[in-house]
Amino acid sequence: MKKYVIGVDLGGTKISTAISTIEGNILANVVLPTKAEEGEAAVLGRIVQSIDEVIVGSSTSIDEIEAIGIGSPGPLDAKKGIIITTPNLPFKNYNLVQPLKEKYNIPVYLDNDANAAAIGEYMFGAGKGKNSIVYFTVSTGVGGGAVLDGKVYRGHTSNALEIGHTTVDPNGPRCNCGNLGCLEAMSSGTAIAKKGKEAVSTNVETSLKKHDTVTSYEVFKEAEAGDEVAKDIIDNALTYLGIGVANAIATFDPEMIIIGGGVSKAGDIVFDTVKKVVNKRCFKSMAESCEIVPAGLGSDAGVVGAVALAIIESR
Amino acid sequence: MKKYVIGVDLGGTKISTAISTIEGNILANVVLPTKAEEGEAAVLGRIVQSIDEVIVGSSTSIDEIEAIGIGSPGPLDAKKGIIITTPNLPFKNYNLVQPLKEKYNIPVYLDNDANAAAIGEYMFGAGKGKNSIVYFTVSTGVGGGAVLDGKVYRGHTSNALEIGHTTVDPNGPRCNCGNLGCLEAMSSGTAIAKKGKEAVSTNVETSLKKHDTVTSYEVFKEAEAGDEVAKDIIDNALTYLGIGVANAIATFDPEMIIIGGGVSKAGDIVFDTVKKVVNKRCFKSMAESCEIVPAGLGSDAGVVGAVALAIIESR
Repeated sequence: MKKYVIGVDLGGTKISTAISTIEGNILANVVLPTKAEEGEAAVLGRIVQSIDEVIVGSSTSIDEIEAIGIGSPGPLDAKKGIIITTPNLPFKNYNLVQPLKEKYNIPVYLDNDANAAAIGEYMFGAGKGKNSIVYFTVSTGVGGGAVLDGKVYRGHTSNALEIGHTTVDPNGPRCNCGNLGCLEAMSSGTAIAKKGKEAVSTNVETSLKKHDTVTSYEVFKEAEAGDEVAKDIIDNALTYLGIGVANAIATFDPEMIIIGGGVSKAGDIVFDTVKKVVNKRCFKSMAESCEIVPAGLGSDAGVVGAVALAIIESR
Repeated sequence: MKKYVIGVDLGGTKISTAISTIEGNILANVVLPTKAEEGEAAVLGRIVQSIDEVIVGSSTSIDEIEAIGIGSPGPLDAKKGIIITTPNLPFKNYNLVQPLKEKYNIPVYLDNDANAAAIGEYMFGAGKGKNSIVYFTVSTGVGGGAVLDGKVYRGHTSNALEIGHTTVDPNGPRCNCGNLGCLEAMSSGTAIAKKGKEAVSTNVETSLKKHDTVTSYEVFKEAEAGDEVAKDIIDNALTYLGIGVANAIATFDPEMIIIGGGVSKAGDIVFDTVKKVVNKRCFKSMAESCEIVPAGLGSDAGVVGAVALAIIESR
C-alpha cells in the first residue's frame, strides 16, 4: 500500500478535500465552494482542482497516493460510483468515479456521507478499536451507517442503514418519504422544529412564543430553561430516538452505537434519554454490552470520513 | 476440505443428526429423543451416539469429516460454544463444543437454531445463489438470522437478529421479554392465539367460539372462512409482521427476505399482507429490489441448517 490517500467531502455548499497518511494524519486540506448551480462539469472541475491543490500543497505526487474516497449525499450507487440524484448537487445519474479514475489512474471510491461518517468514526473517532459499530446521524434528517465485523455494510443496492425510515410508530405523522411514523418523522431536528412551530400556533402557554423563528435549537433551549411544552416535545423526540437505537441493538448486537449530527450536540439530555429507553426495551445483556456514545470527530468529520473510506477500501 | 460434514439439530424433544457431503447431499440421518430431564451428561451422550450412528450408517470414517455443526435454541455464546440457558434443554452455561472437539478432534460449531436455519436457507433453500438474505421465523416466537455479503452475521454477543424483540408499536402489549410492542408480541402464533382467546371470552360474535381450544391455527382457519373477528386479528398480526419486514429492508437492504416458521405456512394471506405493507412503507427502489419469499426447506430445515453451518464455517 502506498503512503497517502485523498478524501473528498462533497456537500451542497462546499467541497472539502484532504490528503492524509494511511494512518489518518492529514497533511493538507483545501475547501472550495461547490457552486452547484453551475452544473455537473463545473462541480467536477472543482473536485479535480481541490485534489490537485492538496497534492501540490502537501508536496507529494500522484504516484504516492493509494486511492481517493468521496463522501456525497445520496441516494447513490456505491458499487457503480453513480450519484443517482440529490437535492443540493447538480449530478443526476452521474458516474463521478469514472472521470476521476481516468484522470488519476488510481482507485476511486464513492459512498454516501452517512456511511463515510460511520467509517470515519470507526477508524479515527469514537469507534476506534471496535469491531462492529452502528452510527446514527440525527440532524435535519436521520441517517446511519454500519461497520460490521470490520467491514462496511452497504446492502444490495447500497441503501442499507436507512434507519431514519424504519417505522417506530405505525400511527405516527407522515414522513417526507411518504411512510407514517418513520424515526426521521419523530426524532429529527426537522420533526422537533415542526412540533415547536405547531405549539406556537396554538393557544398553549409556552416560552417558545417569544422567538421569531423556532428551530430545534430554540426547542432544546426552552426545554432546558424549564418550559413544559418544549420539554414534552424534546422528551417525545428523544424517546423515539431511543426506540430506534434499541431496535438497532436488537438487530445488530453491536459493540457500540455512535450518535452524531446536530441533535446529538444537545448533550446529556440526548444520551440520558436514549439510554433510559434502551435499558427499558432491550435484553439486559445486550444493552449492557453495547456502549452508546457521541460521535468523536468534530467539524472535519466529513472529510475524515472520506479519507477513512479510501483507507478501508484499499485494505 | 474433506468430503463430509455432520449437522446436529438439537431440540427440546429430539436430536436430529445427519451426515452430508459438502455439496449438501445427506447420506444418513438419525433421530433420537432428547430426554432433557435426564440432564446434561445424558443428552451429551445421545448427541455423541447420534454422531457415531450417522458415521457408521453412511460407511464413512471420522477422518473424512471436516466439521460438526450444531443448531440449538438460545441464548448461547456461539464464539465460545456455550449454551447459556434455554427452557427445554438441561444445559446451563454449558460448553457443548469442547467435549465434542476433544472426542472427535475436528472443528465443532455451535449456533442458535434461527441462525442455522438462515444459513440453511441461504445455502440450500430459498436463498440459494443470493448474497445477502434476512431470515424471519414466525411461530411460537419470532426470531431471525442473516447472511450478509456471504457471511453469517452474529453480532458482538452472538445475539444479532433478535428481530422478534424490536419495537414495532411503542404502545403495544407487553411481550414476554418485558418490553412493550415487540414484533413477537404482535405477530407470533402465540400473539394470534392470545387475541383469539380474548375474543372468545367476550360477548363479541365470532365463529372462534365453536372451538374448544383456540390456537393460531383456528384463528387462521376462521379468518379464511370469513369470520370478521378472526380476520381482524390475522390482518393486525400480519400488518405488524409487514412493518417488521419493512424495517429489516430499510436496515439491511437485502436481496431477499425469507419467512419461515409455522405462521408462514398459512400461505398467500401472509405474503400478500406483508408485501402490501412493505410497498406502502419502504422506499420503492428498495422494496422492488428485495424478494420476499417463503422458506424453501421443509421439515428437515433444522438439520439441514446445522449441516450448512458446518459447511459455511469450514470455508
